[in-house]
Amino acid sequence: MANEVSGRDAYALARKVTDVMYERDYATQHLGIKVQEVGPDYAILTMVVEPYMVNGHDICHGGMTYTLADSAFAYACNAQDVAMVASGCVIDYLAPAHKGDTLTAIARESASSGRQKVFDAVVTNQNGAVIATFRGRAASLKKNVL
Amino acid sequence: MANEVSGRDAYALARKVTDVMYERDYATQHLGIKVQEVGPDYAILTMVVEPYMVNGHDICHGGMTYTLADSAFAYACNAQDVAMVASGCVIDYLAPAHKGDTLTAIARESASSGRQKVFDAVVTNQNGAVIATFRGRAASLKKNVL
Amino acid sequence: MANEVSGRDAYALARKVTDVMYERDYATQHLGIKVQEVGPDYAILTMVVEPYMVNGHDICHGGMTYTLADSAFAYACNAQDVAMVASGCVIDYLAPAHKGDTLTAIARESASSGRQKVFDAVVTNQNGAVIATFRGRAASLKKNVL
Amino acid sequence: MANEVSGRDAYALARKVTDVMYERDYATQHLGIKVQEVGPDYAILTMVVEPYMVNGHDICHGGMTYTLADSAFAYACNAQDVAMVASGCVIDYLAPAHKGDTLTAIARESASSGRQKVFDAVVTNQNGAVIATFRGRAASLKKNVL
Repeated sequence: MANEVSGRDAYALARKVTDVMYERDYATQHLGIKVQEVGPDYAILTMVVEPYMVNGHDICHGGMTYTLADSAFAYACNAQDVAMVASGCVIDYLAPAHKGDTLTAIARESASSGRQKVFDAVVTNQNGAVIATFRGRAASLKKNVL
Repeated sequence: MANEVSGRDAYALARKVTDVMYERDYATQHLGIKVQEVGPDYAILTMVVEPYMVNGHDICHGGMTYTLADSAFAYACNAQDVAMVASGCVIDYLAPAHKGDTLTAIARESASSGRQKVFDAVVTNQNGAVIATFRGRAASLKKNVL
Repeated sequence: MANEVSGRDAYALARKVTDVMYERDYATQHLGIKVQEVGPDYAILTMVVEPYMVNGHDICHGGMTYTLADSAFAYACNAQDVAMVASGCVIDYLAPAHKGDTLTAIARESASSGRQKVFDAVVTNQNGAVIATFRGRAASLKKNVL
Repeated sequence: MANEVSGRDAYALARKVTDVMYERDYATQHLGIKVQEVGPDYAILTMVVEPYMVNGHDICHGGMTYTLADSAFAYACNAQDVAMVASGCVIDYLAPAHKGDTLTAIARESASSGRQKVFDAVVTNQNGAVIATFRGRAASLKKNVL
């Protein structure tokens, strides 16, 4: 593994890993989630709340919001081409999302120590209101993604 | 609100709330999740890991496992016909789930104080292996679901 | 490591590990926390809320309640004489504890997969009211405590 | 309540609330925790790992690290003179802290929606290594601290 890349190369690597992962990431594709931007330690993804994403209270199912944040976490996490596995995640719901909303999740690395990393994601709607905050923990598998 | 029902009536109420919620819970339906059993303080749901639920590492996307657990939480939570809103959830992933696996989530109430409740769900596969543990916190909205 | 002990031996081992750990566990001792009972996959600890444990709102500091639960987790976790390290914990506060209260934390194993384990603890007061729920995740270090 | 203060006044108010809270916050005082800096949406606290803070594995008890982070959360949380109550917290341990270490916790507001707020704290040691990340959720009580 040679991951000490920087500047422009780090962004190109992040994009390459993302493209390879996304092509076989059927769950993320299935929900219409798009990777809008990715860098060595962050990723920005968007998702439109489709009619089939609504729960019995007529608001976006918490699992759909979670999946968006978790995907953002995954792309941010793997962007340096070191395969990472998520061990646990936490989400706090601050406001409901509704059918037709466009949600954006921005995930970034918050802390790192040895093989352990902590990433945070914030999910907002098209008006900039915070829908949820997400935190994920991941451990390096000591192998490349590509 | 008159929720002090018990025994057979409590189960009948749980079933009724579940049926009403499920009918408009498009997200849970969309993923093929079934409510196998529900009682006044628990719910058992199943989901088959479909090909479109797999992520870029060829294992079940963490968001799909989460959604199953979160739905189980929701049905257990509302089964007494008191509308509850989830404030936050945590999930720990213990083993990967694979395409074709049948996952079962059992959610039950763990603690209660005033309007606050804590529910736990365990997700297992068809061999009984634990895939994930989930904990959700909810607050009563002081109104009925039905 | 030979940890496949059962029945009476498993309890004797749990007690022995506990005694050895407690003797050098100055933090738990300092707060007057007592290990009331311990078995191969659970531990019961108590703590009296002393005047110096109160915060600026005149209720028991959340960190003190957490420490009681975390200690219960630690003793339950190591009771099979396999050293474990906690990776992350979550606590939900359901009701305040007050000066003079006697708090009891019961920790038990909830799930296990390979080297990973999840433990849950519930903290109650002398009236049986739930003060907090706690969940901890730990990984085996593949060595003995004794 | 009139909390729409800004600039220098917001800092003065944060300091005032902190001083009043700290005077009766016996738990934080007991552990030798100092509030080094506080502003309208953040707080910086330090704690020296004393010999009595060590656990049975001869490292700083997770509850002591948690208490430092939780206190930082509390001071950041109340700094606008709106009383807040913590509902739940999560901590991820990234590296052990040792006897004699000086730990610093920086807590800041990460998200806000209505009466709900999410705060994050990072605990580092004297060498800048991350010991733990902490996240707390709090709800406004709609009354002042002072």
